[in-house]
Amino acid sequence: MICPSHHDVCAADALIRAHLVTTPVLSNQHIRTAGGQPLKVKAEPLQHTGSFKYRGARHACMRAKQEGAKSIIAYSSGNHAQGVARACKELGLHGIIIMPSDAPALKMARVRRDGAEVVTYKRGEESREDLGEALAKKHEATLVKPYDDPAVIAGQGTLGLELRTQLDEPHDIIVCCGGGGLSSGIALALDGSGHHVYLAEPEGFDDWKRSLASGVRETNPTEQGSICDAIMTPTPGEITFEILKNRAEGAFAVPERDVREAMMCAWEEFKITAEPGGSVALAAALFQHHGERPVCAVVTGGNADPHLFAHIIANDE
Amino acid sequence: MICPSHHDVCAADALIRAHLVTTPVLSNQHIRTAGGQPLKVKAEPLQHTGSFKYRGARHACMRAKQEGAKSIIAYSSGNHAQGVARACKELGLHGIIIMPSDAPALKMARVRRDGAEVVTYKRGEESREDLGEALAKKHEATLVKPYDDPAVIAGQGTLGLELRTQLDEPHDIIVCCGGGGLSSGIALALDGSGHHVYLAEPEGFDDWKRSLASGVRETNPTEQGSICDAIMTPTPGEITFEILKNRAEGAFAVPERDVREAMMCAWEEFKITAEPGGSVALAAALFQHHGERPVCAVVTGGNADPHLFAHIIANDE
Repeated sequence: MICPSHHDVCAADALIRAHLVTTPVLSNQHIRTAGGQPLKVKAEPLQHTGSFKYRGARHACMRAKQEGAKSIIAYSSGNHAQGVARACKELGLHGIIIMPSDAPALKMARVRRDGAEVVTYKRGEESREDLGEALAKKHEATLVKPYDDPAVIAGQGTLGLELRTQLDEPHDIIVCCGGGGLSSGIALALDGSGHHVYLAEPEGFDDWKRSLASGVRETNPTEQGSICDAIMTPTPGEITFEILKNRAEGAFAVPERDVREAMMCAWEEFKITAEPGGSVALAAALFQHHGERPVCAVVTGGNADPHLFAHIIANDE
Repeated sequence: MICPSHHDVCAADALIRAHLVTTPVLSNQHIRTAGGQPLKVKAEPLQHTGSFKYRGARHACMRAKQEGAKSIIAYSSGNHAQGVARACKELGLHGIIIMPSDAPALKMARVRRDGAEVVTYKRGEESREDLGEALAKKHEATLVKPYDDPAVIAGQGTLGLELRTQLDEPHDIIVCCGGGGLSSGIALALDGSGHHVYLAEPEGFDDWKRSLASGVRETNPTEQGSICDAIMTPTPGEITFEILKNRAEGAFAVPERDVREAMMCAWEEFKITAEPGGSVALAAALFQHHGERPVCAVVTGGNADPHLFAHIIANDE
């Protein structure tokens, strides 16, 4: 297992900085944490492709190209797919995105408009791994994994380097956590900064919280049943857990009603579009954080389903 | 009539810069103008109080305080009210906002949470001007007008100074236009910059378009019937028309369906909350601009009604 370091995040930043949006840190004097501390929001939905996934994808695809790759493969129907598709387009690489055949048409269309090829498989009938391996051989393609990959982690960490310059005193930084690519990258970026990193997960999918407590990688009992589809991974990544087990100060498990409130808060008070999985850290800050430091919640993505979003904004049940 | 100058905008900027959000300019490679030019968005909903109105209010209230004012009066149930309330709170002034008694409860609540006093009048029965005059005498208060005021115009112009540093080549800059406070301030800020200013209005409320054509201030036939409530003024301001008549390159009148599309585009592609009146310039860029320069559309505010917004996002008619 190769663990990236703080230095690797800085090297990634030097490579891709010119291609990133330095997303703003927003504040609203009326919005505070559950414990009354000032609360800032890192507005990552304003990143290219609408989520932080572009950062890691851009870096990993650039590294792959430097090593001679002509094609990239990714398994994803979500933000990772969009990030890889866009990165491939910009780098002149052939992007192949493997999705289940029943993935939403909108998600396929978004990947295709960035020039990537969508290859579908029948969920439950075909093995996406076999399909990926066959395609990788045929196209001599490199697989870019969504989180447990040193180049991806270092790329996501560029967000943490931005926070170092955007926050002028030590904060508790809360980051939503699925596989842990973003939070581990941010944690590396913040080494020695005085900021503390906390993780946030949906209730019922608190594998990180339990893993930090037990010291070993725990598994979620189920993989379905949350609106936070973007961060529903079964267990912490191997590399990401190695990074976070001694760096994360703690974790919050957030109920769905608080996620909905956080989406509304992001829309109404900070004027940004946040998807459910991207709002979990804000929910933790608003309803659970009682620490004594100011908080920065990372809102990680804004690729929300319009109908779900409309229901939440209109406060329909 | 005292017309502010480019110099006055710079002086306003020096006074209030530390209190403003320098709102980002966003781009999305898939979104272009009707004529195929690159299209950027100035994301002013991220300004304090959710709209550009804070800029002019902050500057006008600060000037009033320098001249000895202890209280400020404003007539508004919208973004100007919020801007003035917040500015008064920050400056330690007593803010008095005069609203019709049937104004939405949410709007009153937002003004009150910024510490301002809301005084209501019965629309059609009481004269708000008489009420305002009586209150002004009683509290020795200064009236801050929403647009036809040199200090307000100079404050709004700070947005234009930001654009000078944010845009690296000459753009067509499209700004929505009600009374003309923002667009005239921006036009002053852009004097000699090489950028061109265009105005955007809702169809049926195109007093500016007709006034620029005729050379005199024309009036709209009606004051009701648009979702763009924030920019429904009956006629151009006296000062603002004087500034814009030789500075605006042209104007667009935008149908309501295009405004709805622009709100959806802002939400889906740029991940920001835009209110109807704040989306008119983006609508003009998307559906009517066929010029040969790249465009920057100013999205001016994000204080949208949640139910209307939900309908538009869910594409319900």
